[in-house]
Amino acid sequence: MPDSPIRKLVPLSDRAKAMGRKVYHLNIGQPDLPTPQRALDAIRNIDRKILEYSPSEGILSLRQKLAEYYHKYSIYVDVDDIIVTAGGSEAVTFAFMSCLDPGDEIIVPEPAYANYEAFAIVAGAVIKSIPAKIEEGFALPPFEEFEKLITPKTKGIMICNPNNPTGYLYTQEEMKKIRDLVKKYDLYLFSDEVYREFCYTGAPYISAFHLEGIEQNVILIDSVSKRYSECGLRIGALITKNKAVRKNVMKFCQARLSPPLIGQIAAEASLEQTEEYLLNSYNEYVSRRNFLIDGLNRIHGVYSPIPMGAFYTVAQLPVDDADEFCSWLLSDFEYENQTIFMAPASGFYTTPGQGKDQVRIAYVLNKTDLGKALKVLEEALKVYPGSTLRR
Amino acid sequence: MPDSPIRKLVPLSDRAKAMGRKVYHLNIGQPDLPTPQRALDAIRNIDRKILEYSPSEGILSLRQKLAEYYHKYSIYVDVDDIIVTAGGSEAVTFAFMSCLDPGDEIIVPEPAYANYEAFAIVAGAVIKSIPAKIEEGFALPPFEEFEKLITPKTKGIMICNPNNPTGYLYTQEEMKKIRDLVKKYDLYLFSDEVYREFCYTGAPYISAFHLEGIEQNVILIDSVSKRYSECGLRIGALITKNKAVRKNVMKFCQARLSPPLIGQIAAEASLEQTEEYLLNSYNEYVSRRNFLIDGLNRIHGVYSPIPMGAFYTVAQLPVDDADEFCSWLLSDFEYENQTIFMAPASGFYTTPGQGKDQVRIAYVLNKTDLGKALKVLEEALKVYPGSTLRR
Repeated sequence: MPDSPIRKLVPLSDRAKAMGRKVYHLNIGQPDLPTPQRALDAIRNIDRKILEYSPSEGILSLRQKLAEYYHKYSIYVDVDDIIVTAGGSEAVTFAFMSCLDPGDEIIVPEPAYANYEAFAIVAGAVIKSIPAKIEEGFALPPFEEFEKLITPKTKGIMICNPNNPTGYLYTQEEMKKIRDLVKKYDLYLFSDEVYREFCYTGAPYISAFHLEGIEQNVILIDSVSKRYSECGLRIGALITKNKAVRKNVMKFCQARLSPPLIGQIAAEASLEQTEEYLLNSYNEYVSRRNFLIDGLNRIHGVYSPIPMGAFYTVAQLPVDDADEFCSWLLSDFEYENQTIFMAPASGFYTTPGQGKDQVRIAYVLNKTDLGKALKVLEEALKVYPGSTLRR
Repeated sequence: MPDSPIRKLVPLSDRAKAMGRKVYHLNIGQPDLPTPQRALDAIRNIDRKILEYSPSEGILSLRQKLAEYYHKYSIYVDVDDIIVTAGGSEAVTFAFMSCLDPGDEIIVPEPAYANYEAFAIVAGAVIKSIPAKIEEGFALPPFEEFEKLITPKTKGIMICNPNNPTGYLYTQEEMKKIRDLVKKYDLYLFSDEVYREFCYTGAPYISAFHLEGIEQNVILIDSVSKRYSECGLRIGALITKNKAVRKNVMKFCQARLSPPLIGQIAAEASLEQTEEYLLNSYNEYVSRRNFLIDGLNRIHGVYSPIPMGAFYTVAQLPVDDADEFCSWLLSDFEYENQTIFMAPASGFYTTPGQGKDQVRIAYVLNKTDLGKALKVLEEALKVYPGSTLRR
C-alpha cells in the first residue's frame, strides 16, 4: 500500500507551521470557496431527536435530487441507478471491488489520481498505466497504445474527466475513442466526473453516460465535495445502469451500514442552491487558473500546460527530484517566513521514474495568496541545491 | 460477498409497510433512545463557512476527548494511539487490511457480527469459526478448541465484548484465557468494544487493553454509534499501541482522505455529555432486557439465555428454518395488522447449517412495543406452517 503523495508530507508542513511559518497549501484539492449557505442552513435546522442509520443506498430524497441534477446534464439515470457513498473514494473502492476479481487489470492514463492505485490494491486488481505526456498537454494516448495493454485479464478503463491531477478535459474525439475501446473489448468504463462543473472550454461537457452503446459498461463516480466545497461531508455516489454491478455494490454498502447522515442532508440542500453559486465558483477558478498558469510559465525553467478543467495543473520544474524539492521547501526553505506545500507528481504515476521533475498544484487559494506562493516558488528555485538550471 | 443478514429482508419489510402494516424492528441495532442534546446542539451551532476535509486520523480535539474517556475505564491509551474512522465498520476493515495478508486466518467465536466476514473477504483473509453454544449461554469455547484451529496462517483472534449478536459478556477468566492464547501464539487481538457501556453484571468492564503482556497485540475497535444513539454519524475509532499497525492503517485512512467532519464535531460534544445520559440509557436497557427475556422464555418452545451486555439476544425458536420464518413474518403474517422484523441467526454463523432455528433480537424498542412484538411472535408461532411443535 503506497503512501498518499498528497498527504505524506503533512508532518513536515505541521513542523513548518509550528515554527511560525506561513504555509501555502497547493497540495490538496480542498477548495477555499464557501460551502453553499443552503447546506449550512440545512445542518443548523436539523430537528431530529435521533441521528440514526440511513438506508445503505442513501436517502431517497437525495438520490431523487441527484437524478434531477444529472438530467440537467442530459445524463438520463434513474433514482435506482444511484447509490450514495462516503465520498467519491468509497465509490471508486466499491466499484473496483464489485467489478474486478483479484488479478484483473484496468488501464488508467497516467498521471492519475494517486488513490486509484490504493483502491485497486484493496480490490486485488492491477493498474496498467498508459502514459499521457506533459509535452502533449496530457492528451489521451492513441487507441493503439491502449490496445497494446489489453490482455484477457483487462476488465476496464478508468478515466477522470476533467482530470485530477492534470486538469485535462477529454475532447469529443477522445471520448469517442474511449467508447470504441470499451465497446470493442466489452470493458467497464469507470468514469470519475467529480470536476464536471469546472470545464473551461465553453463546449458542452461530455459524460461517459453520453457515449452510445456502452450504457451497461459505465460506472460513474461522483461527489459533492468539490463542486460545493464540502469535502468534509464525505458524500459521493456510484451510478450505473448495470443491475448486476449494483447488486454487488449493495453488498458492500450494506456491510458498512450507511453513508453519513448529516452529510446527506447537507448535500441534498446544496443541490437546491441557485445556479449563481456554481457560476461564481466557475468564474473564480477560471480567473485563478489564468493567473496561476501565466505566473508559472513566467518563472525561469518552469512549464505548465493550460488545464481546461478541474482546479489542478501538473507543472514541470527545473529540479532533479520534485519529491526532494517539495520536502526541502517545507523543512529547509522560507521566503519572508512563508513557504509552499505542493504534491510531488511522482505519486500520481504508477510507472517508476515518471514525473520526477513534476508537481501537482491545486489552485484553491485566492489570487493574492497564489501570487505570494508563486513568488516563494520563484525564490526557492533560485537557491535550491538540486536545481538543474545551474548545471 | 455474502448479503447482510440484518438488511437483506428490508425489501419485504418495505412491502409490508406499504400495505399499511406496522413492522416492529427487532432486526437492527438502531437504538431508539435520543441522541445526546449536546451533540444536536453542537451540530446546530456549527459556524464554519467551509465544510472541509478533516485530518485523515481525525480531529485532534475529538481524539483527546476519546483518550480522556478511555482513561475513565483505566484504558491508558495516548491520543496518538487513536485513529478516527467512518464507524466501527471502517475500523474493522482497516484493522484486517492492515494486519492480515490474503490467505491469513483469524479465529472468531460464532455466532459473530455478520459483517466481520464481509470485512475479512475484503482483506482476503479467512475466518475460522469456533462454536459458542446456546446451551452453554454462548460462553467462550475451551482453550483447546482454539488451539485445534491454530495453523501457521493464524494471525489473530477477533472478539466482540459485550457480544453482538449474543449479548454475552466475557468473564475475567475467559479474558485471561484469550490473553494467554494471544501471548502464546503472538496473535493480534481484534477487540470490538462498541457496547462497553452496556454491561449488566455490576462487575467492572474488562477491556482487551487491561490484559497484561499483550499491549502491542491489541487492536481495539470502538464507535460512538451505540452508546450515544448516533449510528447515522458514522464515527468510530481504531486504537492500538502498535506503531507498525498504525502506520499501515494510516495509509488506508489517507486514501479515503478523512472521516466525516460533522459527525466528528457531534461525537466530540457527546463525550462531554453528563454521566446521567449514559446511566439513563443503561437503566432503560436493563429494564427492557429483563422484560424481553422473560417474555421470550414464556412463549412455548422459545428459549433465550440471559444476555449480560449489549442490547441483543440470540433466541432459539421452534421452527425448522428461521430464515424462512423471518421472511414469512414479513410477507405472509400479520396480527392485528402488525408484524415483526427479526434477523435470522444463520447469517451470524460461518459454519453452514448452524443457527438454523435461531434469531437475533435487538431490544431497541420501548417496553410497550416490545410487548406487542412478543405477542406477534407468540401468535405467529401458533400458526406458522414450519413450526416444529406440532410435528
